[in-house]
Amino acid sequence: MSTTQMEHVTALLRGSPLDLAQDPLEMRAVFRAMLTAAPVPADVRTEQTMLGGVVPALRVRIDGAVPAATIVYFHGGCYAIGDSETSLNLVAGLARRTGAEVVSVDYRLAPEHRYPAAVDDALTAYRALLEDVGDPARIAVAGESAGAGLAVATLLAARRAGLPQPAAALLLSPWVDLTQSGRSLETKAEVDPSMTATALRVRAADYLGGADPRGELVSPAFADLRGLAPLLIQAGSHEVLLDDSVRLAARAAECDVDVTLDVVAGAPHVFQAFATVLDEAAAALDRAAAFLCGRLDPAASPTQVVA
Amino acid sequence: MSTTQMEHVTALLRGSPLDLAQDPLEMRAVFRAMLTAAPVPADVRTEQTMLGGVVPALRVRIDGAVPAATIVYFHGGCYAIGDSETSLNLVAGLARRTGAEVVSVDYRLAPEHRYPAAVDDALTAYRALLEDVGDPARIAVAGESAGAGLAVATLLAARRAGLPQPAAALLLSPWVDLTQSGRSLETKAEVDPSMTATALRVRAADYLGGADPRGELVSPAFADLRGLAPLLIQAGSHEVLLDDSVRLAARAAECDVDVTLDVVAGAPHVFQAFATVLDEAAAALDRAAAFLCGRLDPAASPTQVVA
Repeated sequence: MSTTQMEHVTALLRGSPLDLAQDPLEMRAVFRAMLTAAPVPADVRTEQTMLGGVVPALRVRIDGAVPAATIVYFHGGCYAIGDSETSLNLVAGLARRTGAEVVSVDYRLAPEHRYPAAVDDALTAYRALLEDVGDPARIAVAGESAGAGLAVATLLAARRAGLPQPAAALLLSPWVDLTQSGRSLETKAEVDPSMTATALRVRAADYLGGADPRGELVSPAFADLRGLAPLLIQAGSHEVLLDDSVRLAARAAECDVDVTLDVVAGAPHVFQAFATVLDEAAAALDRAAAFLCGRLDPAASPTQVVA
Repeated sequence: MSTTQMEHVTALLRGSPLDLAQDPLEMRAVFRAMLTAAPVPADVRTEQTMLGGVVPALRVRIDGAVPAATIVYFHGGCYAIGDSETSLNLVAGLARRTGAEVVSVDYRLAPEHRYPAAVDDALTAYRALLEDVGDPARIAVAGESAGAGLAVATLLAARRAGLPQPAAALLLSPWVDLTQSGRSLETKAEVDPSMTATALRVRAADYLGGADPRGELVSPAFADLRGLAPLLIQAGSHEVLLDDSVRLAARAAECDVDVTLDVVAGAPHVFQAFATVLDEAAAALDRAAAFLCGRLDPAASPTQVVA
């Protein structure tokens, strides 16, 4: 039991000055201060890189690990805020648990760069890493919130471009319906400590410009998902975005995609970011890592740590 | 890849003489012949027992194991056919993977015994095993198809009776909507090799007599599930009952219940019964066992095999 831990995290989120409905340029600084407050463990190694010559990204690995697999990661922030630094602790937790190198992509953000800039960057990043790694069985795709939506968009764009699917995709609290039709936007409004329907509406309009909110690359919850890589979707039950996860899982199952939906009772949006202080978050990342390692090429899976 | 295995199992099911819309007394023999054709491994030990003095059941364990946990199991067969013998191979696979003793309940069947006879027997069995084991943290509940629906009904009946919840529940292709409102009854009709909407309609009417098909103990997909034990729901994507699994998971998440929905692409209804010939089935049972062992009291979890 970690009821006290969950209450602590929830109180932290309720007290946060972050308001995603406000000016994104200001909120970028708030979000960054909030998510980079916790120190990154000393053995986390990072290196700036440029994918396909144009998309900046952060390579993340654990000191001493000899990664045989690559996880392409897309941070959250409603397509308007966040960057590879704001997701670093979560990403490092994934690297540690999988033994993989995680490449966290700094895709372009709205409102400066509207859809499809983020999807273009995501596909460029995936294509570059496919060429770099040489074997899709050694690549997984992952993301959180809008970044998880972008991860599914990347799988769809890869299918469209005739590129192979990765071994698997991990989706943390995905935002996959920019029409905002999920019932949980209302039913979970009171228990969600961090996300609101208003903020999502504002940010969706900003990202879409005039684009169709039902388009498959922005709202994959409505897409034909046939042929996509196996999906693990994790969500908390205290999320206004819960129905995005549930409906994406339903759609994947309908489309004959291997899919696991893993809902943690009482947990908030992207609760995995709190793995150092919340047992349920650490356990969820353990399950995520087991899923990824089980789907990646066996030769790519074992964590090799040099003493 | 085990495409050939999946095709083999699917062909086997399509060629089966079982028709659940027909006379249940005849179908009991057909079902039994079908599911007891494969030999039970030599190290599987069974013992007939009587729970609470009135409900017959089969205790199943692996020779040499010293079980520290108990799984109460409910077989499938649309509440009209099947028994503890028809589920023995699947149940033995669970016992082997968890180290637990599985107690497979021979609840009363329709049309001789209509609802609520099955639920009454299930609750009697659960209550007797609670007293026997002494600690709900060492008990899990599981079932397949109608038996998985009965497993959820047992959790609801236990809550209503003021009994503690078990540590976890495993639901294989649950039938949890006797109103037959799932869209997959139509969308998956062509790809489901064994189950039909017609058969489910006939068997539901038979089981219900005049009872309300929306009642929570027959259609828990519509129930208030608050306070229920953590659920693992497994289904195949080639099932007319797929939407029962998806909607139960959605409902559990809505009700703040820990829930995992695990859908295997291309797999038929209760594909876990084919674990000896289908890699996906063995892998699904491995995941099910990991889930159960992770939720059961740690002291109850380790498989202790005496040499």
